[in-house]
Amino acid sequence: MAWRFALMIDPVAAQSPQADFTDTFTAVDPAAPALTVGELSTQRGDGIFESIGVVDGHAQEVTAHLDRLAHSAALCELPEPNLTQWRAAVLVAAAACGPGESVIKLILSRGVEHGPAPTAWVTAAEASDFSRARTEGVAVVTLDRGYPLDVPARAPWLLLGAKTLSYAVNMAALREARRRGADDAIFTTTDGFVLEAPTASLILRRGDTFVTPAPNAGILHGTTQLSLFEHLAARGFDVGYETVSASSLPQADAAWLVSSVRLAAPITAIDGASLAGDAALTASMNAYLLSPRD
Amino acid sequence: MAWRFALMIDPVAAQSPQADFTDTFTAVDPAAPALTVGELSTQRGDGIFESIGVVDGHAQEVTAHLDRLAHSAALCELPEPNLTQWRAAVLVAAAACGPGESVIKLILSRGVEHGPAPTAWVTAAEASDFSRARTEGVAVVTLDRGYPLDVPARAPWLLLGAKTLSYAVNMAALREARRRGADDAIFTTTDGFVLEAPTASLILRRGDTFVTPAPNAGILHGTTQLSLFEHLAARGFDVGYETVSASSLPQADAAWLVSSVRLAAPITAIDGASLAGDAALTASMNAYLLSPRD
Repeated sequence: MAWRFALMIDPVAAQSPQADFTDTFTAVDPAAPALTVGELSTQRGDGIFESIGVVDGHAQEVTAHLDRLAHSAALCELPEPNLTQWRAAVLVAAAACGPGESVIKLILSRGVEHGPAPTAWVTAAEASDFSRARTEGVAVVTLDRGYPLDVPARAPWLLLGAKTLSYAVNMAALREARRRGADDAIFTTTDGFVLEAPTASLILRRGDTFVTPAPNAGILHGTTQLSLFEHLAARGFDVGYETVSASSLPQADAAWLVSSVRLAAPITAIDGASLAGDAALTASMNAYLLSPRD
Repeated sequence: MAWRFALMIDPVAAQSPQADFTDTFTAVDPAAPALTVGELSTQRGDGIFESIGVVDGHAQEVTAHLDRLAHSAALCELPEPNLTQWRAAVLVAAAACGPGESVIKLILSRGVEHGPAPTAWVTAAEASDFSRARTEGVAVVTLDRGYPLDVPARAPWLLLGAKTLSYAVNMAALREARRRGADDAIFTTTDGFVLEAPTASLILRRGDTFVTPAPNAGILHGTTQLSLFEHLAARGFDVGYETVSASSLPQADAAWLVSSVRLAAPITAIDGASLAGDAALTASMNAYLLSPRD
């Protein structure tokens, strides 16, 4: 992966009305120091983020990502982000991306400890090559997320519907999956329901119906899943949200992990049990996801 | 709070045998940029930390903190920290602390994304004034941590025994406590047992016995609690570890939240129900905790 660009954003300057936000941006060298040791993002994972796919310089589904950033900010009681300013920053970062696939990250940190304001920045980097995951697929294992299904709604301080920077558990789950010989994980609840992958949404196919676990306080609503459901509905498929039991997973006709940068990765096996694939359908999904989307 | 010092540590250089580690340290201005935007600590809260109390330049219980740092590193599959190097860094940071109370933080991050090695640093800052919490005490509320008691042991990828940088939930719990008019929180399990506070251990007194919830995969073993138990045992009290039900909390004769920098804060109320205090005992605890300890 090669860095392409980084931009510090002044969220305070965005409070004053102005037509152009570019004077609130400062381009920085992504390989040079830009953050202080007092950053609460780094000390406590205290902040939120979004990862946006970029194809040939076009940032995908920017509005959906910005809306989720605002939703995460509200859950974490961060100051409301100025989405016009963030959109302007995404466009500047996208313009710095060359041809091919890139990833833009938006980060809104609570700021420096005892500091007056949040810290915010945008980065752009070359995307990893995910062509193998998109065509050959991924083997997954189910891992207990530790919660019963009803906890997130009644314990909002667990921040389970927010895309926070506190991703150590997500990263540990991916390491556990690899230790078990798999490529990725699907989180389940202690009472046997399916949630999501550590960095992706799950989509299941049953006949001509595509379902994903119902987004609730415990599941991030996936921007790529939303976009793909629109596409599948337009092609005449039924799509819907369900409470999915873990025991029903092997009955799926096919399944995918979908996310903003890796896009649609067909699941080849769940806990060692093979799952049928549909290479043509997967290819058409990824062709759609690689086309310019807004 | 005023920053006093920051030191970047080269964990790779520490792999080569050497008598003196000072050439692996680089002093940096804590108010100036020192970390890149690619830092996984900041992007994913992917790393571990320790906070060490410092009194008049003496860093307290350094060995216990270093041991816990190594324990957290193992749980998070980070490279084993060279504790001799870290101890040397703590001494350099402590020497930069003036009279009065300070806090030294040790941070070991997984490093820069796709980078070759972890990033590590130590900071020193003036401690906040906690005299009011130590004398007047703190009102607490119980908050559901979302897990049943037995989950952490069978789901180590939840990292509940590690002191990771992913503290967004801990910070959100403190905000929820304040929203409810309290000063702090005590986490409970979904099945009704007591865990710990977001940034402190809980100690309960029943007659002449002091107990703390049994440290297991779901509870950080508090360095201050350990030190205080040694002190209380030396004074002739019984001390012990128990599985504590939340329903038993109101029966405690007294209770404290103890941590490395705030030290012993007597609990004045739990979920609105007053708890008796023992000002003389609390004062003697804090006098001990403020004395030089190794």
